[in-house]
Amino acid sequence: MTSRRSAAGQPPSDRVRVRRAPAHAAYDRATVDGILDAGLVAHLGFVVDGQPYVVPVNHARVGDDVLLHGSPAGRAFRLLIAGAPVCLAVTHIDGLVLGRSAFHHSVNFRSVVLLGRAEPVTDPASKLAALEAFTERLLPGRWAEVRPPSPRELRATAVVRIPIEEASAKVRAGPPGDEPDDLGLPAWAGVLPLALRTGPPEPAPDLAPGTDLPPSVLGLMERWGG
Amino acid sequence: MTSRRSAAGQPPSDRVRVRRAPAHAAYDRATVDGILDAGLVAHLGFVVDGQPYVVPVNHARVGDDVLLHGSPAGRAFRLLIAGAPVCLAVTHIDGLVLGRSAFHHSVNFRSVVLLGRAEPVTDPASKLAALEAFTERLLPGRWAEVRPPSPRELRATAVVRIPIEEASAKVRAGPPGDEPDDLGLPAWAGVLPLALRTGPPEPAPDLAPGTDLPPSVLGLMERWGG
Repeated sequence: MTSRRSAAGQPPSDRVRVRRAPAHAAYDRATVDGILDAGLVAHLGFVVDGQPYVVPVNHARVGDDVLLHGSPAGRAFRLLIAGAPVCLAVTHIDGLVLGRSAFHHSVNFRSVVLLGRAEPVTDPASKLAALEAFTERLLPGRWAEVRPPSPRELRATAVVRIPIEEASAKVRAGPPGDEPDDLGLPAWAGVLPLALRTGPPEPAPDLAPGTDLPPSVLGLMERWGG
Repeated sequence: MTSRRSAAGQPPSDRVRVRRAPAHAAYDRATVDGILDAGLVAHLGFVVDGQPYVVPVNHARVGDDVLLHGSPAGRAFRLLIAGAPVCLAVTHIDGLVLGRSAFHHSVNFRSVVLLGRAEPVTDPASKLAALEAFTERLLPGRWAEVRPPSPRELRATAVVRIPIEEASAKVRAGPPGDEPDDLGLPAWAGVLPLALRTGPPEPAPDLAPGTDLPPSVLGLMERWGG
């Protein structure tokens, strides 16, 4: 929240510089990486015939890249592979901010916007490592619990990487910023925290009876348990 | 999940027709509206100089429109007000899908993609009604608990509406779709449900002691309680 350097260690480009509420902006890699890594789903923006499209995708950061995987036949991935300009946004909702006035209601959130062009990851070993990263970053240990991708499955999966070179973060945290004149109003004010939480696991209908929950799932339930 | 009619009752336009996993697609207004209404945050896509941008925004559906509010000085709202083509995506994460193979890991989700051009909502009465809708759709009763917007605050808030005319929904639900050959593997398979849940309310530091939680907040905690 303090650095004004970009993800690449330079001042932020004009394209990612946060204009609204710049006090909430951050450009340092630690903040950007933390928000990317905590996100389950990203929203990918791309353009077709001047029309913007936004679709949810799964992502994984590995070092200085954000990796995406998907169907090579899909419209989004054809554009990604072709190196079209894209935007990736990751947003966490941390709470509802409830002020004494309607105007000072808000949302506590952490978000990252990343601009760039993707590069395809094509060699099988790198693709395999990328797919392992998708699984392991969320469920450490899961990769070893399941069958690895077959050559056919690997061919059916496109992987691209977007270098983290032009990115900005925005964070709103803390209580409402009520007007001094409103502090005497009787309304309750504060924050109602929100977080994504796990519920009770639902075994597949065809799961062999007695199959225990593995360490990977138990670990996520402990971290995200409701 | 069954209708192939668009949000406007027509077959879906080629721009919003779901190409990947079309069995997961829906175009009926009830499905689209339900996903829009359950969403706390939307992602807005727009284009500047050929570069797509995606930013998180708050939205509220009222009838056949999705309303957005924000700063009239912001880049996104200047484009919205000017009638530029935009895309709005709302995504809910419902669970992690854990198959016996890496390939059959997935996410259960509900998402809507809405294409269109916004129209500004400028007269003060309509703006006021829109702001009330933002508050009330999430926290019924909250509008009456707090100070309404002043004329200055109303001027500082831009409101636009995007007609729901070109929209599609995509829903993945249920257990993993494992390969028949993998059913004998010892890996646990199933779904780990995920949902946005409230935590304990955090009163503002300057809240008068003894101020009770209001019905609006208690109601949301009951619906979304962790």
